[in-house]
Amino acid sequence: MGNSQQAGRVLVVGATHGNERNGAWLVEVWRQRPGSLRQSGLAVELTIGNPEAHAACRRYLDRDLNRSFASGLLEQADSPVREVQQARRLLACHGPDSPQPCLVVLDLHSTTAAMGNCLVLYGRRPADLALAAGLQGLLGLPIYLHEADPAQTGFLAERWPCGLAIEVGPVPQGVVQAAITRQTRLAVEEALAVLAAARAGRLRLPSQLVVHRHRISLDLPRRADGSPAAVIHPLRQHRDWQPIRAGEPLFIDEAGAVIAYDPPAELLAAGEGGLAWPVFINEAAYGEKGIALSLTSRECWPVEAGWGEALAAIAAALEPG
Amino acid sequence: MGNSQQAGRVLVVGATHGNERNGAWLVEVWRQRPGSLRQSGLAVELTIGNPEAHAACRRYLDRDLNRSFASGLLEQADSPVREVQQARRLLACHGPDSPQPCLVVLDLHSTTAAMGNCLVLYGRRPADLALAAGLQGLLGLPIYLHEADPAQTGFLAERWPCGLAIEVGPVPQGVVQAAITRQTRLAVEEALAVLAAARAGRLRLPSQLVVHRHRISLDLPRRADGSPAAVIHPLRQHRDWQPIRAGEPLFIDEAGAVIAYDPPAELLAAGEGGLAWPVFINEAAYGEKGIALSLTSRECWPVEAGWGEALAAIAAALEPG
Repeated sequence: MGNSQQAGRVLVVGATHGNERNGAWLVEVWRQRPGSLRQSGLAVELTIGNPEAHAACRRYLDRDLNRSFASGLLEQADSPVREVQQARRLLACHGPDSPQPCLVVLDLHSTTAAMGNCLVLYGRRPADLALAAGLQGLLGLPIYLHEADPAQTGFLAERWPCGLAIEVGPVPQGVVQAAITRQTRLAVEEALAVLAAARAGRLRLPSQLVVHRHRISLDLPRRADGSPAAVIHPLRQHRDWQPIRAGEPLFIDEAGAVIAYDPPAELLAAGEGGLAWPVFINEAAYGEKGIALSLTSRECWPVEAGWGEALAAIAAALEPG
Repeated sequence: MGNSQQAGRVLVVGATHGNERNGAWLVEVWRQRPGSLRQSGLAVELTIGNPEAHAACRRYLDRDLNRSFASGLLEQADSPVREVQQARRLLACHGPDSPQPCLVVLDLHSTTAAMGNCLVLYGRRPADLALAAGLQGLLGLPIYLHEADPAQTGFLAERWPCGLAIEVGPVPQGVVQAAITRQTRLAVEEALAVLAAARAGRLRLPSQLVVHRHRISLDLPRRADGSPAAVIHPLRQHRDWQPIRAGEPLFIDEAGAVIAYDPPAELLAAGEGGLAWPVFINEAAYGEKGIALSLTSRECWPVEAGWGEALAAIAAALEPG
C-alpha cells in the first residue's frame, strides 16, 4: 500500500472492461477537452484500463482485469496472461508507489443490468466508506458492498489507498448512450467534489450510510449437461435493488413454469424469511461466472467519525490541479 | 437456387450471430422439448447458425456470417475464413439443394436497438413479401426492407427460396430475456402459421404492405483520427421507427452541442424535406461497420396477387411434420 503522506493524484479509469464503452468515451472526451470535466481543484489522471480489450471491444482478452489484482497474480512478473501484465502496468504507472502516484481511484463500469447509477465497494475500508457516504449524501446513489465473496477477488480498486467502482446501467455491451455517460459523468464529478471537500477540511457526511451487502450469488437452473434450463422471470428482469420474498417469481423454465425464489440457508438464518435485495440481475458478463443475480441485505449503518478522518488523511495529500 | 417442386422443410436458425442468445435459447428449448413449439403441421429443422461463435459468445470469429453468403465467397471451397466455411456447411446440410432440403428459412436475430419485434427483408422476392405481409397482417410487425445497400451484402436468407430475419430488441448482446424470447417465439409460430395456410391454399393477405425501405446509413461524426466525436442524441436513442425531420436533434457532441439531422441529398431529392424513419439506432455490432443508424422511407405498397402465388408454390412443397 502507498504512503498516504506522499502527494498524489486521483486516477479515473475507463474500460477496465473493454466492451464497457461509456467510461472510455468520457476518458477520451476529457483527454481531448480537459475543460469539459467540471473542475474540482484536484489533479486528475485519466487512463484506459484495458486498451487491448477496448480495441477489440471485448470484456477481456485472457482473464477479467477486474479480478486480476490479487497479490498472488501481481507477483507473477513473467505471467503470460495479458490482463495480469496490464494490472502490473497500471500499478507501475499509476499505483500508489509509482513515480507519479495516484492515491484514489474511480473505476468506471457499465452493466446490462438495470442498476441505475450506483457505487460498488470492495470491503469496508474507512476512506472508501466515507467517499461512498459523501456521494450517497449528494446524489442518493445505492451502494453494493461486494465483500466476503471467495469466488470473486482481485478487484482493481483495492490496490489504491481509496477507491470504488461507479457502475451504471442498463446499457448493452459495446454501446455508448448519452444518458449513461451523463450519469457516469455526474458520479465522477461529485466524487471529485467530495474529495476536494475532504482535502479542504470541509467534508460533511450524512449520519447514516445505506449499503446493500453481498450475501450470495445465484446461478440459473441448469440441465445435466450444464446448459441453462431457465431464464430470469420477466417480473424480476430490470428490478435490481427491489426486494424479493420467498415464493416470488425468480426464474421461468423452458416449459414456461415459474420457479419461485427459495431463500438460501445463509439468508434464512438471518431471519426475515429470506428477504433479499437482488443486484446485477442478468448481467451479460456474469453468465460465464455462473451468476444470474446476486442477493444482498439492505443495511443502514451509522456513519463513523473515523471514516471521514481516514478520507481526510488521504485527501490532504491530493495534488491540486 | 433450389427447385421449389422438391419437398423440403422450414429451417429455423438461431445464433447466426453468436452473441445474440435469444434465438439460440429457443432453438435449444425446441430441440429439448419439441412439443413446446406450437405445432403448425409443417416439418421444421432447427439449427445453430454459428456454433463456434455461439460457444465464444461473440458475434463472429473471422467475419460476419450474415454477410458471408455472397456467391464469390461461397465458391471458395478452401477459404480459411471460418464463417465462409460455416456458410458452405449450412447450405450443404440444410440448403435447398442439399439431401434434406429446406425451402424456407427463418433467421432469428436480436439487436441492442429498440426495434421491437420486426422483420428484415433482403430484396423484393414475391414469396418473401407474401410471408412478410401475412405476418404483418397477423401481428402488425414493422418491416425493414434492407435492399440496395452495396456495403452490406451476402445475407443468409437470400440463399433459400424464401426467407427473412426476425429481429427483436432492445436486448444486450450475450443476454437472454424472457420478454425477448416470447416475442421471437410469437413471430416464429405465426410465420409457420402463414406458411401452413399458404400450403393449404387458404392464405389471406392484407390489401397493403407497409415497408420501411432502406435509403442510406449514417455514421457518427468522427475526429480526424477516426474516433467518434459524438453519440446519438438522448432524444433519438430508443426511438427506432419514429420519423425524423430536418433540424431535429440527432447527435450530441463531446462538448454537449446538439448536432441536428441534416438530410442527405438522396433523401432531399425525394421531396418531403428529407423526412426519414431511422432504424437500428445505436446497434452495438454496427459500430465497426460505421453505421450509427439507418434511414428508411416508409411506403405503403398494394399487395400483389403474384406474391401469394409465389409463396403458395413454395409452400405446396413443404413437408408435413
